[in-house]
Amino acid sequence: MPATPLDRDDLRTRVSAALRAQLHRQRGRLALVGPELGPVADALADFLEGGKRLRPAFAYWGYRAAGGANSEAVVRAVGALELVQACALIHDDVMDGSDTRRGKPAVHKRFAALHADEGYGGSADGFGTAAAILLGDTCLIWADEMLDRSGMPADALERARPVWDEMRTEIMAGQYLDVLAQAQGGHSVDRAIRVVRYKAAKYTVERPLHLGAALAGAAPDLVETLSRYGLPLGEAFQLRDDVLGVFGDPAETGKPAGDDLREGKRTLLLAYAAERATPAQEELLDRYLGDPELGAEGVEALRGVLVETGALTRTEERIGSLTRRALDALNNAHVDAEAADALAELAGAATTRKA
Amino acid sequence: MPATPLDRDDLRTRVSAALRAQLHRQRGRLALVGPELGPVADALADFLEGGKRLRPAFAYWGYRAAGGANSEAVVRAVGALELVQACALIHDDVMDGSDTRRGKPAVHKRFAALHADEGYGGSADGFGTAAAILLGDTCLIWADEMLDRSGMPADALERARPVWDEMRTEIMAGQYLDVLAQAQGGHSVDRAIRVVRYKAAKYTVERPLHLGAALAGAAPDLVETLSRYGLPLGEAFQLRDDVLGVFGDPAETGKPAGDDLREGKRTLLLAYAAERATPAQEELLDRYLGDPELGAEGVEALRGVLVETGALTRTEERIGSLTRRALDALNNAHVDAEAADALAELAGAATTRKA
Repeated sequence: MPATPLDRDDLRTRVSAALRAQLHRQRGRLALVGPELGPVADALADFLEGGKRLRPAFAYWGYRAAGGANSEAVVRAVGALELVQACALIHDDVMDGSDTRRGKPAVHKRFAALHADEGYGGSADGFGTAAAILLGDTCLIWADEMLDRSGMPADALERARPVWDEMRTEIMAGQYLDVLAQAQGGHSVDRAIRVVRYKAAKYTVERPLHLGAALAGAAPDLVETLSRYGLPLGEAFQLRDDVLGVFGDPAETGKPAGDDLREGKRTLLLAYAAERATPAQEELLDRYLGDPELGAEGVEALRGVLVETGALTRTEERIGSLTRRALDALNNAHVDAEAADALAELAGAATTRKA
Repeated sequence: MPATPLDRDDLRTRVSAALRAQLHRQRGRLALVGPELGPVADALADFLEGGKRLRPAFAYWGYRAAGGANSEAVVRAVGALELVQACALIHDDVMDGSDTRRGKPAVHKRFAALHADEGYGGSADGFGTAAAILLGDTCLIWADEMLDRSGMPADALERARPVWDEMRTEIMAGQYLDVLAQAQGGHSVDRAIRVVRYKAAKYTVERPLHLGAALAGAAPDLVETLSRYGLPLGEAFQLRDDVLGVFGDPAETGKPAGDDLREGKRTLLLAYAAERATPAQEELLDRYLGDPELGAEGVEALRGVLVETGALTRTEERIGSLTRRALDALNNAHVDAEAADALAELAGAATTRKA
């Protein structure tokens, strides 16, 4: 391990290697239960190959900002965040009925296909759902194990635990808010912002930063600075996600065009559109949003509404101002220069990405 | 806390109180996210009121057998097993499409009903499923937190962790085997025994005993004795469950009569029946087993096959011989007399229960 900080590519490579080692270990354990568990290990190994490793990067830089030294142990500890995220995504795809993730079939679809290929009895979709629920649970369990056995000192883990627990409850609560918002319908700007805060801002940026900071034993004022940087940036990250969910290039996002519209996600983008929609535009929103059969024409119509009402511009402006607020928080605090540079670079990566 | 061991009722009362305290703490945390999380806290509080607290009892007596002293901390630590079990049951009911649990609507049904009552949009069942997935995840997370913050000394927790991790992966693997067996169909005695071992025997009895033993720092020979007692007893426990799933009194089990038959569970009871079925009986098994619309008449027909093929008798005999094997393991080892008595009593409770 170098004494100098890891750059983004190097960290990504090392996190991926740590996840592979974790999977290898768990594959051996599953094999003891029976050879039938092979497809479970394969599916999780494939799933974990994907991912931008953004949460580990935020955690790593929270740790560095607090003066933590490089080690394989910290790579494993921050890598555990990818397993929490794997659980969230696998379960989310079941809940949303999304067929595609990272350009490949979602886990529930993969197991439904296994069911069909093997000519099993009963419902292939039911089997896929059951398998995906269990695989998500397994990721949540392994996340915990990976952090706990990362090799970080006991006192570091003890400091990290409350953040870890807080974060995991918050993400589930945020997901529930999101599911509820879709069921309740309507377009409230306040509600959309609250969903973003819990589902994404805290979980994707602030808590990973805090986790890393706790592992290194950060002082309270650094933790506060990381929040002032992390919360607006996390919100900006999610708004970029929302924009990509509607306007993203499927070749880059790995998701079909307009998937979020088909699922009827209650994003801030849509809440902005609803606020300024003419009756005709409102009618288009009502007609197309959340239609599982929504085709290219409907996607185009909704995109038109988002552009014409100024919702896209307002969202882009909000992404810009939130990102500036995050960067200001860094500049106005005493953060180690190396960490500040890396966090500024991450802010750019999180908010200007194409996928 | 008395210095003398807790009897079963006292332990149950204290475990329930510890779970209530945990829920109270978590309710406060959820309230910070928003008032919409109230139904989540309510549903989990209601769910956790039920349950026989068998796993905590096994863990407690594994701990006592290893010389552990009473404390509120150990009650919290063993009580965490009920949260793992809550996750398993809530997710299991989604996977099996079971409508009832512990005499009340399953969690996914409860949230589907909330959806209908509130007049939400979209699919009520989809909302119920999503909520149940998230509530199960939340239980898994809180289980971890409850063990970790139980107040047990750090060295005790460090010893318990590997058992905890092993157990949680095993239960998910066992559940997958079970789901797969249902999809594959057929009736293999070997497969049914393997499902029982991972899904139930290890998870319900052996691992809780080991968890308690690890918390108290048990010597390896005691751990081995606990396995020799726990594995056969755990299998007997599950076979009793299988018998109750077909022949149990709904007023006692809290589940509709013949629910396991409707779901097409591939139990040892059925594997035994298939082994000795006449062509006519085989035809009845094929026709009725796994039929979601199975009525009283079909349940009666299947019960007849299980009785006439001798499958019920063989299962009861196996429960008897497994239980004797468990008790012999206790008698032939140097287990503290108080713990041995309590474990013998638990063996009786686990295998002769009506629910």
